[in-house]
Amino acid sequence: MLMSTLNIGLIGAGRIGQVHASTIAYRVNTAQLAAVTDPIATSAQSVAEKFRIPKIAADYKEIIADKNIDAVMVCTPTDTHAEIIIAAARAGKHIFCEKPIALDLKQTDAAIEAAETAGVKLQMGFQRRFDANFARLKQAVSAGEIGELRMVHSTSRDPGPPPVSYIKVSGGIFVDMSIHDWDMLRFVTGSEVTEVYAQGGVMVDPAIGEAGDIDTHVTLLRFANGVIGTVDNCRHAAYGYDQRFEAFGSKGAISVENNYPNNVSFSTGQHVQRDLPYNFFMTRYIEAYAAEVVAFVDAVVTDKQPIVTGRDARQALLIALAAKQSYLEKRPIAL
Amino acid sequence: MLMSTLNIGLIGAGRIGQVHASTIAYRVNTAQLAAVTDPIATSAQSVAEKFRIPKIAADYKEIIADKNIDAVMVCTPTDTHAEIIIAAARAGKHIFCEKPIALDLKQTDAAIEAAETAGVKLQMGFQRRFDANFARLKQAVSAGEIGELRMVHSTSRDPGPPPVSYIKVSGGIFVDMSIHDWDMLRFVTGSEVTEVYAQGGVMVDPAIGEAGDIDTHVTLLRFANGVIGTVDNCRHAAYGYDQRFEAFGSKGAISVENNYPNNVSFSTGQHVQRDLPYNFFMTRYIEAYAAEVVAFVDAVVTDKQPIVTGRDARQALLIALAAKQSYLEKRPIAL
Amino acid sequence: MLMSTLNIGLIGAGRIGQVHASTIAYRVNTAQLAAVTDPIATSAQSVAEKFRIPKIAADYKEIIADKNIDAVMVCTPTDTHAEIIIAAARAGKHIFCEKPIALDLKQTDAAIEAAETAGVKLQMGFQRRFDANFARLKQAVSAGEIGELRMVHSTSRDPGPPPVSYIKVSGGIFVDMSIHDWDMLRFVTGSEVTEVYAQGGVMVDPAIGEAGDIDTHVTLLRFANGVIGTVDNCRHAAYGYDQRFEAFGSKGAISVENNYPNNVSFSTGQHVQRDLPYNFFMTRYIEAYAAEVVAFVDAVVTDKQPIVTGRDARQALLIALAAKQSYLEKRPIAL
Amino acid sequence: MLMSTLNIGLIGAGRIGQVHASTIAYRVNTAQLAAVTDPIATSAQSVAEKFRIPKIAADYKEIIADKNIDAVMVCTPTDTHAEIIIAAARAGKHIFCEKPIALDLKQTDAAIEAAETAGVKLQMGFQRRFDANFARLKQAVSAGEIGELRMVHSTSRDPGPPPVSYIKVSGGIFVDMSIHDWDMLRFVTGSEVTEVYAQGGVMVDPAIGEAGDIDTHVTLLRFANGVIGTVDNCRHAAYGYDQRFEAFGSKGAISVENNYPNNVSFSTGQHVQRDLPYNFFMTRYIEAYAAEVVAFVDAVVTDKQPIVTGRDARQALLIALAAKQSYLEKRPIAL
Repeated sequence: MLMSTLNIGLIGAGRIGQVHASTIAYRVNTAQLAAVTDPIATSAQSVAEKFRIPKIAADYKEIIADKNIDAVMVCTPTDTHAEIIIAAARAGKHIFCEKPIALDLKQTDAAIEAAETAGVKLQMGFQRRFDANFARLKQAVSAGEIGELRMVHSTSRDPGPPPVSYIKVSGGIFVDMSIHDWDMLRFVTGSEVTEVYAQGGVMVDPAIGEAGDIDTHVTLLRFANGVIGTVDNCRHAAYGYDQRFEAFGSKGAISVENNYPNNVSFSTGQHVQRDLPYNFFMTRYIEAYAAEVVAFVDAVVTDKQPIVTGRDARQALLIALAAKQSYLEKRPIAL
Repeated sequence: MLMSTLNIGLIGAGRIGQVHASTIAYRVNTAQLAAVTDPIATSAQSVAEKFRIPKIAADYKEIIADKNIDAVMVCTPTDTHAEIIIAAARAGKHIFCEKPIALDLKQTDAAIEAAETAGVKLQMGFQRRFDANFARLKQAVSAGEIGELRMVHSTSRDPGPPPVSYIKVSGGIFVDMSIHDWDMLRFVTGSEVTEVYAQGGVMVDPAIGEAGDIDTHVTLLRFANGVIGTVDNCRHAAYGYDQRFEAFGSKGAISVENNYPNNVSFSTGQHVQRDLPYNFFMTRYIEAYAAEVVAFVDAVVTDKQPIVTGRDARQALLIALAAKQSYLEKRPIAL
Repeated sequence: MLMSTLNIGLIGAGRIGQVHASTIAYRVNTAQLAAVTDPIATSAQSVAEKFRIPKIAADYKEIIADKNIDAVMVCTPTDTHAEIIIAAARAGKHIFCEKPIALDLKQTDAAIEAAETAGVKLQMGFQRRFDANFARLKQAVSAGEIGELRMVHSTSRDPGPPPVSYIKVSGGIFVDMSIHDWDMLRFVTGSEVTEVYAQGGVMVDPAIGEAGDIDTHVTLLRFANGVIGTVDNCRHAAYGYDQRFEAFGSKGAISVENNYPNNVSFSTGQHVQRDLPYNFFMTRYIEAYAAEVVAFVDAVVTDKQPIVTGRDARQALLIALAAKQSYLEKRPIAL
Repeated sequence: MLMSTLNIGLIGAGRIGQVHASTIAYRVNTAQLAAVTDPIATSAQSVAEKFRIPKIAADYKEIIADKNIDAVMVCTPTDTHAEIIIAAARAGKHIFCEKPIALDLKQTDAAIEAAETAGVKLQMGFQRRFDANFARLKQAVSAGEIGELRMVHSTSRDPGPPPVSYIKVSGGIFVDMSIHDWDMLRFVTGSEVTEVYAQGGVMVDPAIGEAGDIDTHVTLLRFANGVIGTVDNCRHAAYGYDQRFEAFGSKGAISVENNYPNNVSFSTGQHVQRDLPYNFFMTRYIEAYAAEVVAFVDAVVTDKQPIVTGRDARQALLIALAAKQSYLEKRPIAL
């Protein structure tokens, strides 16, 4: 265990950067924010003030060059992730990076290799693994509570699509949105995908189709251990943020339902009803975002393997690319 | 066991009489309807035809005089129950009678005594004991699944009040509506009430107050075994027929929820909702009405004690009268 | 409307034949059982007695030859369905037939053609369409309550596999078990399948594999109207009979959950729990079996198109055969 | 609005004091902790370090004497509340105080009067009003969503009783435990209690009886607006922390269910089950504890009436004392 507090540099002070800053500031005793940087100077300034961060760096290179800093949180746009990971790894910093590493395998591999060569921890921001519901399901599956696994079904539907400008650079639904589902399927099954077949289309907004993407798909997957899986994704659900999962095995089934802002039940002359589930991923996963950062700090401080690594991100990307290819070529793709 | 089929005379061919006729005709192999009578000749005629009953009797006396008949179903208005029970008992007929025996203890006692003296079975129509939910709760409590019982709560709210003309002759809410709750509390606790205290009022319809009754009450009860209970009754619930129960003990709690016509869940832009529970007691308890008649026939044919007797009806009436007195005198009443 | 009562001949007095006999005897005023036949004489005898059927016929031909009979219920093994339908149709009898018509298209088409040529009603026993939950979901989808349909998911898992001897002649899981799911998908979407892709395997019992079948599959389907569907089937679920469905559209989602023998909730020191869902299809769908026969009689008596016809059975069979081919050839199959 | 940040003095650095310190440190921009005191020096020290509180005071008097301090959080044992409130009020400090003010009316009134005379805010720690579920129920009732209120039922059962040493000085179950229920009933009904009648006993642990208290009660209440209420309290529930509420009105009903650490559903060969509800009040109400402190700071900073005042605490105490009297004298008590 390190004798002193872990000094963390925050690279990117946007929405998710602020969430992680809050966790380090308020929920972790073994780490502190030592520096922050953001292209938008006022963002860096404001975050530094709010979380009492002593140093505002000009750019990520200044942070990486800081001998005092042990680890970095990479909360910048996707197209900068690989470069920063590589640079940080070479500088011997441990790295927490928002998913994905990159939209292609080449950069992804380069980043993973850099971290492995440098012997630094690289944890990816698949926060869903740290959600109380998904973690409980995983625990039960691992403990054999439902026996031998047969099927897994992951459902993720967003309250609404992101701007078309974002979709254009997102890598497409299979990479951008479904990446969490691919990761969850691997996490729960403990096995690798051997084949995918995707059906999809533009059902939400024609502008998404014009941007070269689709907004809805169901993908059928086979795993090395024989388990069959599906992913059901849509960029829009009228009733909010729909995040469910079912695992079915020889001794039973386990399902994760949606989370709600309250559990109040209303019986009226029309219906028995409740309020809608959470409508925003930051609210839905607020505790999971905190838990993943706590786990990262713990992994570094106690020198443990992070729960979700660069290799995990690579495997999810592989599935995403195969699913995309399956959709485009209208045939099953073996991995 | 009787060698031949039990011959049953149906006294009263109204709504509940028809339900019971249907059970005997279609669900019981060991009994058959041998005769029917009803003051309204066309009702008797129609029921006889529908259920192929060979004989239409002029009145209940003709049925009781029929040597061929082994048992009677008394489905007439309350004010005739005691007289018919007494006559039927003296004629040696086993008796299934709709609740209550009477609105006062004197007639109730006379009827019970007649049945006991004659050595005939007398089963009362507390169908709730035969409902799959309440029966399951009772079974679990009896099996000690929740340990030593501490509290019981019975909630019964009707979709809407009966006509004021009915309320006027009903004996009032404590006797007419709550009688099922008193019975369920005794059934579940296996103990007798030692004290009641009632709070109530007219909250649904002033006409009910003008008729000398109230339409809403909550009554607090103490049982000989120390258990504390409540009954929550209202003549009107906007969302339908509300029939719930909770038993709480040293090892846990059990609750009965409402029954619904379907289990479909709707997620819309406004709510997550489902259709309302059943709205009518005949629909809600259709299987319980059948089960109680099956049990009655079985009790007669196999010479067993019925699950709910005249003495049970008497005890429920005692509680009802005490609760009414508590409400009127604004004080706890010991039984 | 017919002036007199519909006379029905029951062909096959086994388990499902008895269920239908009970419905005609007790729940339908406009029809009566006029004759029954079964290869096992004692079965025919016993059903005739129980439901007061006046005539026991030597075989189905005697029933079909009976001028007095208007319609037949075909409750015999699958391999006799086509022959009986054709003969009955030629004799001018309306026909209710258990699913499927046959395991191949040739016989199926011959039977459908015979019925259409003869101008008789042919209703197939897809009881799930008549279940309160599935019917409610269909009604909501048809009424546009969830907007434009995007996805449908049908889950059917059996409490346990049938005997291997049955599986050998069943036509295999895609035809035998999944036929209800294919029908439900068509029923709910109101569209035809254009492509299927199946993943499956032997996960329950190797003996099923040795018999040339599989016991588990997930099939991905595309419909002419663009909707994407899945069917999740397994011959075994540890927790009972699992029958769920989800429809997702532009305005929301609807789901059918399992049915339970009671709604009692238990809170113990270990869990909050409830009893398992129904464990047997006859119990789970008891009301649906009655409703389909009521609907058949109504369709004949009022000269309406049945809700589920021979053509529906043919379409479900087409999907089944394509799914089977997809599984065997490991590729998507266009219909 | 105040120009500068609100300076708060924390009086009592125990369990709940730390929770409130955390809220002020991390969730409130308009306030900061300026000083802390605790009889246990190490507690004060540790809290000061963790939340970077600049000053450790010798006792509450030093805090109150501090000109720099605008408000105090009183998180000391109950028997010191009144004295501290009075002193703080005279020093012109706004006050947030854990419930109750005192176990008797005299001290309670003195404290309220002191605050009112000084014109300072006095907010009491009834955190349940700030819970997402109870707040949503209250909002719906206030908005008339269930029409005119008829009944309210509050259920609070603890996972286990506190030490008997605590019970002896707690004021008894009606004051100590039920105080939250009395407050919720007043909050939801918006009306005052006019009469109470309590039934209770020792059902959990005879040692509680030997200490002069009971551990279980059900109390029936009448409100000035005619509403009927019940409170169901027990010091022990095998399944965890049971916190439910039902409001029933002319247009429907609303109920608050328990909160759970996850929503995962398990279907096994025995049951359909879920994990138990939260087992500890600090976990169950963690967000409510934060919300009440946020609201207190807001009330002070924006000069608004706190949502729950000293007068609210007084009214809850009045009900508690009447319920206790009712239990002891075995009769309804008018307020």
